[in-house]
Amino acid sequence: MERTLGELAALLGGKLQGPADLVIQSIAAIDRATPRDITFISQKRYARLAAQSQAAAFIVGPDQAHLARPLIIVPHPYLAYAQAAALFAPPRSRWPGVSPLAFLGQGVEMGQEVSISPLVFIGNDVRLGDRVTIMPGCVLGDQVQIGADTLLHPNVTILERCTLGQRVIIHSGTVIGADGFGFVPGKEGHQKIPQLGIVVIEDDVEIGANCAIDRGALGETRVERGVKMDNLVHLAHNVTVGAHSLLVAQVGVAGSTKLGKGVALGGQAGLVGHIELGDGVQVAAQAGVTHSIPAGQTVIGSPAKPHQEFIKFISLLPKLPEIFKRLKELEKRVTELAVNPPEEPQE
Amino acid sequence: MERTLGELAALLGGKLQGPADLVIQSIAAIDRATPRDITFISQKRYARLAAQSQAAAFIVGPDQAHLARPLIIVPHPYLAYAQAAALFAPPRSRWPGVSPLAFLGQGVEMGQEVSISPLVFIGNDVRLGDRVTIMPGCVLGDQVQIGADTLLHPNVTILERCTLGQRVIIHSGTVIGADGFGFVPGKEGHQKIPQLGIVVIEDDVEIGANCAIDRGALGETRVERGVKMDNLVHLAHNVTVGAHSLLVAQVGVAGSTKLGKGVALGGQAGLVGHIELGDGVQVAAQAGVTHSIPAGQTVIGSPAKPHQEFIKFISLLPKLPEIFKRLKELEKRVTELAVNPPEEPQE
Amino acid sequence: MERTLGELAALLGGKLQGPADLVIQSIAAIDRATPRDITFISQKRYARLAAQSQAAAFIVGPDQAHLARPLIIVPHPYLAYAQAAALFAPPRSRWPGVSPLAFLGQGVEMGQEVSISPLVFIGNDVRLGDRVTIMPGCVLGDQVQIGADTLLHPNVTILERCTLGQRVIIHSGTVIGADGFGFVPGKEGHQKIPQLGIVVIEDDVEIGANCAIDRGALGETRVERGVKMDNLVHLAHNVTVGAHSLLVAQVGVAGSTKLGKGVALGGQAGLVGHIELGDGVQVAAQAGVTHSIPAGQTVIGSPAKPHQEFIKFISLLPKLPEIFKRLKELEKRVTELAVNPPEEPQE
Repeated sequence: MERTLGELAALLGGKLQGPADLVIQSIAAIDRATPRDITFISQKRYARLAAQSQAAAFIVGPDQAHLARPLIIVPHPYLAYAQAAALFAPPRSRWPGVSPLAFLGQGVEMGQEVSISPLVFIGNDVRLGDRVTIMPGCVLGDQVQIGADTLLHPNVTILERCTLGQRVIIHSGTVIGADGFGFVPGKEGHQKIPQLGIVVIEDDVEIGANCAIDRGALGETRVERGVKMDNLVHLAHNVTVGAHSLLVAQVGVAGSTKLGKGVALGGQAGLVGHIELGDGVQVAAQAGVTHSIPAGQTVIGSPAKPHQEFIKFISLLPKLPEIFKRLKELEKRVTELAVNPPEEPQE
Repeated sequence: MERTLGELAALLGGKLQGPADLVIQSIAAIDRATPRDITFISQKRYARLAAQSQAAAFIVGPDQAHLARPLIIVPHPYLAYAQAAALFAPPRSRWPGVSPLAFLGQGVEMGQEVSISPLVFIGNDVRLGDRVTIMPGCVLGDQVQIGADTLLHPNVTILERCTLGQRVIIHSGTVIGADGFGFVPGKEGHQKIPQLGIVVIEDDVEIGANCAIDRGALGETRVERGVKMDNLVHLAHNVTVGAHSLLVAQVGVAGSTKLGKGVALGGQAGLVGHIELGDGVQVAAQAGVTHSIPAGQTVIGSPAKPHQEFIKFISLLPKLPEIFKRLKELEKRVTELAVNPPEEPQE
Repeated sequence: MERTLGELAALLGGKLQGPADLVIQSIAAIDRATPRDITFISQKRYARLAAQSQAAAFIVGPDQAHLARPLIIVPHPYLAYAQAAALFAPPRSRWPGVSPLAFLGQGVEMGQEVSISPLVFIGNDVRLGDRVTIMPGCVLGDQVQIGADTLLHPNVTILERCTLGQRVIIHSGTVIGADGFGFVPGKEGHQKIPQLGIVVIEDDVEIGANCAIDRGALGETRVERGVKMDNLVHLAHNVTVGAHSLLVAQVGVAGSTKLGKGVALGGQAGLVGHIELGDGVQVAAQAGVTHSIPAGQTVIGSPAKPHQEFIKFISLLPKLPEIFKRLKELEKRVTELAVNPPEEPQE
């Protein structure tokens, strides 16, 4: 896993400033790096730590090119760090081939170099693309389809007929394709509506641990390409999440709501059903969104309001006791004034 | 799975208006139906889509009986749709009998036609009713009891001594009977209180994916018949959920709280412990309920307030800046008035 | 499991008041105890139930020493109850040794009396201390280390290189060591930052069901000794939870936030990333903490405010309609006063 600084500069497409043959063994944070490590400066405020850092070399932006240390100069140091970290990451442990301790149903089709660990259950007529990795404890229902290079971490459940694209990553405990919460309500019992739809996860999506993404009665629940979801997120039936959206942990989105592209939902935010969020909408943590939001807007609070409006009144909330007190005083003064007007004008 | 329109009308208890021998192959939404499908109109606003719909036939209420298309006329079209969808649902894949790749403890008793998939673990002295289905990855602790026709989706965990009624559905990843959060707190460590109670899930309950329902130190946590719970719901130790209540996703209910019958909790709502919600109470999404609520009341907000009260003040929140500004102006005017009273009465 | 009252008094370090040879078979709540059970009075308000209780004996504080029933008198009855309950708890069912139906990787080291159930997956180079219990459906990644007497309930996932201390309890469905939510964002796609850190769970920690505790890009996510976490809690990458903190259900803590010792987070509370909570901070249920909090403070609300400040303004919120009305009336009176001043001063 060793790389020379010259190799690294080439791989990252950066400018080398220092000895090309310097050997780098790993990557570490600036305050923890050893003389075997490369580190990075992605924000100016970390630059002051460079002098004390024991790192062998630094990935920096052009603004830090003056540092008298071995450097790789790149336009976007944080992105280059992410790429360098991938180079130094230990290879993921991956079962070689299909374990005889996995259960495979009938008619399973799979591409090249598929990895299926022990204690995996794969239903009938499942299709797995090249280099798919299924880790222990996963369960795939009948007719599930998974694209090339997708990785299911341990104990993931993908239910019947759902499809995952290429290069998808699903973290442990997540459930894709459970029945949507669909009932015809009644006082003497709620009639279940069969949930016959599917969930479609497009390419390059990553979904955190212990999430739940439901299928609907009809049609699709869809997570478009490049979406990244954190842990414990709930997506109800027939939700659409637009491409490259970011959903932070514990977000909940109710049924049939549609998110545009590049939407960002803060942690624990909740969205009611049957609304639309335009492209690029940003929702603050813990916000409660009760109506559709036009593209580009940032909302906050529960019920959610435009950010500008929210900060104006929220900062006054702690002043409520003062406002009420001043109001009462003023009432008293006015009453007094009405009863005892000032006798004569003063200058 | 084909049915004639006449058969369908009979099964749904509806009035046939059109050719009894029309063959229907599936059910679909009004805007997606093909000439092989039946569809339904459950709300007036969808009626205008009927003209363009390619559906072979429609399930409608008496108000749409005028439509010049093959119809099944029923009192409650949405309910009839749910029933029709169940008729067309593909049969659930179900392991025939007990897989030799499942592990069964000693003294397991089971009824007729029980289905136990590969990679299931069943502890000692478990009792399973007729036609119970246990899908792959499920773990049942010792002395668990499950009633007839109950279905556990993959990767469900039911811990020791808990009981499930008949026709219960538990979705993947849900954990029933983990220890309640019970400790005797102390600065130098919190002493665990053994959680020796059980969880009882009554008949016809459905529980979503990745929920957690805890047992208590003593006594029972009980989910009464017909309750429907969405995903990622937390029920603490000794909670009681009254019959036919609906708990939307990510709800949390703290210890020993009791919900009456037909209670509805909106998504992400939270309830403190040791309170009671009367029959039919409705709690809005994200509400925080801090005290008992009488039957029939609707509450909203955090801390939760009666709905009528809440909407009055919440709508004024965005006016706070204006209120404060007007108060300050008024103070100025009153001060001016005190110093420079108007010289003489007009009018 | 029978104990005499004398044995119990000795084991609990309490003072016996009654027949030492009285046989006790179990422990129960005061209103449910039978003549075979011991019960306890931990709060004065339950003392009035003693007369009607059928319990054979009572664990009480010195303030209840006057009760004319068989007693064990202790300084802290609730703590003694917890200890007594542990004595009467049925022994946990535990697989004897390593099941041949578990899968063990290469280089697994284990101490004495380790219990590994069927359908467990253990990766390469895992180290398990004495008396570790791994229940069915658990998956342990490569190089995981687990200390003595730790218990993993069914379907727990511990990912590669994470470490658990001694006497740790992890409830079902919990995932430790999934990748942190780390991306370099971009409109045309978010670049994943490899998550190469680990999660460290110290001694005597208990973690509820379906929690998710992430690893970070670098460094550690750490849960210090004695911490107790409820269900469905999310800890992001590089979070530190100080010793003996209590995290109630559905809490979410964003990346790199540090909690001091003895912090308490109420249910559904959310904390933003990169902040610090001092020792003993208390956060109310559903609070949203957006900035660091000094030691000892209690905060409430979203955004969270000091408790004293919060209760002052939150109680005025329902008065907003009245405040606005009184303000408008006052404006009218002042306008009138300016136009029609009182004609002459009254006494």
